[in-house]
Amino acid sequence: MAGLPIILSAPSGTGKTTLCRALREQLPDLSFSISHTTRSPRENEQDGVDYHFIAKEKFIGMTDRSEFLEWAQIHDNYYGTARKNIEDTLQKGKDLVLELDVQGVETLRNLSYQGVYIFILPPSMEELEKRLTGRGTESSDQIKQRLETGKREMSKYRLYDYAVTNVTVEESVDTILAIIRAEKNRMSRYQPTCPEIRKIIESGTS
Amino acid sequence: MAGLPIILSAPSGTGKTTLCRALREQLPDLSFSISHTTRSPRENEQDGVDYHFIAKEKFIGMTDRSEFLEWAQIHDNYYGTARKNIEDTLQKGKDLVLELDVQGVETLRNLSYQGVYIFILPPSMEELEKRLTGRGTESSDQIKQRLETGKREMSKYRLYDYAVTNVTVEESVDTILAIIRAEKNRMSRYQPTCPEIRKIIESGTS
Repeated sequence: MAGLPIILSAPSGTGKTTLCRALREQLPDLSFSISHTTRSPRENEQDGVDYHFIAKEKFIGMTDRSEFLEWAQIHDNYYGTARKNIEDTLQKGKDLVLELDVQGVETLRNLSYQGVYIFILPPSMEELEKRLTGRGTESSDQIKQRLETGKREMSKYRLYDYAVTNVTVEESVDTILAIIRAEKNRMSRYQPTCPEIRKIIESGTS
Repeated sequence: MAGLPIILSAPSGTGKTTLCRALREQLPDLSFSISHTTRSPRENEQDGVDYHFIAKEKFIGMTDRSEFLEWAQIHDNYYGTARKNIEDTLQKGKDLVLELDVQGVETLRNLSYQGVYIFILPPSMEELEKRLTGRGTESSDQIKQRLETGKREMSKYRLYDYAVTNVTVEESVDTILAIIRAEKNRMSRYQPTCPEIRKIIESGTS
């Protein structure tokens, strides 16, 4: 059986990175898609781990050959999700987490891309602001802008199948794991291991 | 928020009773619907716990007043799920398990009754036969008949949202708990506790 694509989004400051790290630890079998980007690596970021850092010309070549499932230009930089790695992983039967922004999710939905779409919500706007301020990396103007973007993103919640309010990382990870477990038992994709039961089920007409 | 109706079915011998007992222990907040029946209590069965045992006349009166969500006559006995208790429980915000046979589920689906429909499958037909034989309560003819009924029921799998193969009780309970947890985070019924976030989400148009 092919693996399950799990699409995760969150307004910035909601704690997606910490969540994904915890998910990785709890489900070592889970794969994570690594995006391509033309921006320069930040301190602590590793090529091939956090992103595939590539030159703009290479990126544009890949878009020309339709090698991206989705891609976007944000300010001067390009970001994209390469098709090939994803398909290889899923075909091996491994579940795969795709961390995407709302724009990327819109693209996937327009392609009717099959997967489980999960949206991580902050407990409150106040808490979101507190977390953004706590980072200490952005000016108050930038924070204000991020909050506005966050609101706009949240208003697109209908793109998603599930919502998880990130109060504590432990609880959110447990909920995401429950969603993955449930989705693997969804009748529309469930395949009983016993051939006889599978045959009975497939013979069903109602 | 209203509670979630969880509809559970399983071909006989699949271990539904044991499963439900384990579910009850793990989620003490979960309510279980108690059916009405006109049949006599078996040894160890308690009125108001296993069933509401009532007289035929009373049952027919209830059907006349449309007091059942679904009811059926099986051989000489009547079985039904009373509407009132279910609605009261759900309105209190408590999740409720309804153990129903496939016929009952068909009735509910025809009424477009909203809930989570879970089908418990045996690991194999051989194992199902072994479990039915192991009970020691039925003749081999009766067992054969139950296996045929089971096959017919399994062919109606499309009535359900989820399938759980009951290999071990622990694993099946964990999967059912995961399904319930996931379903409570389904975007279509999820309500963020924070009013501001709820408002942003409700303002969404896409």
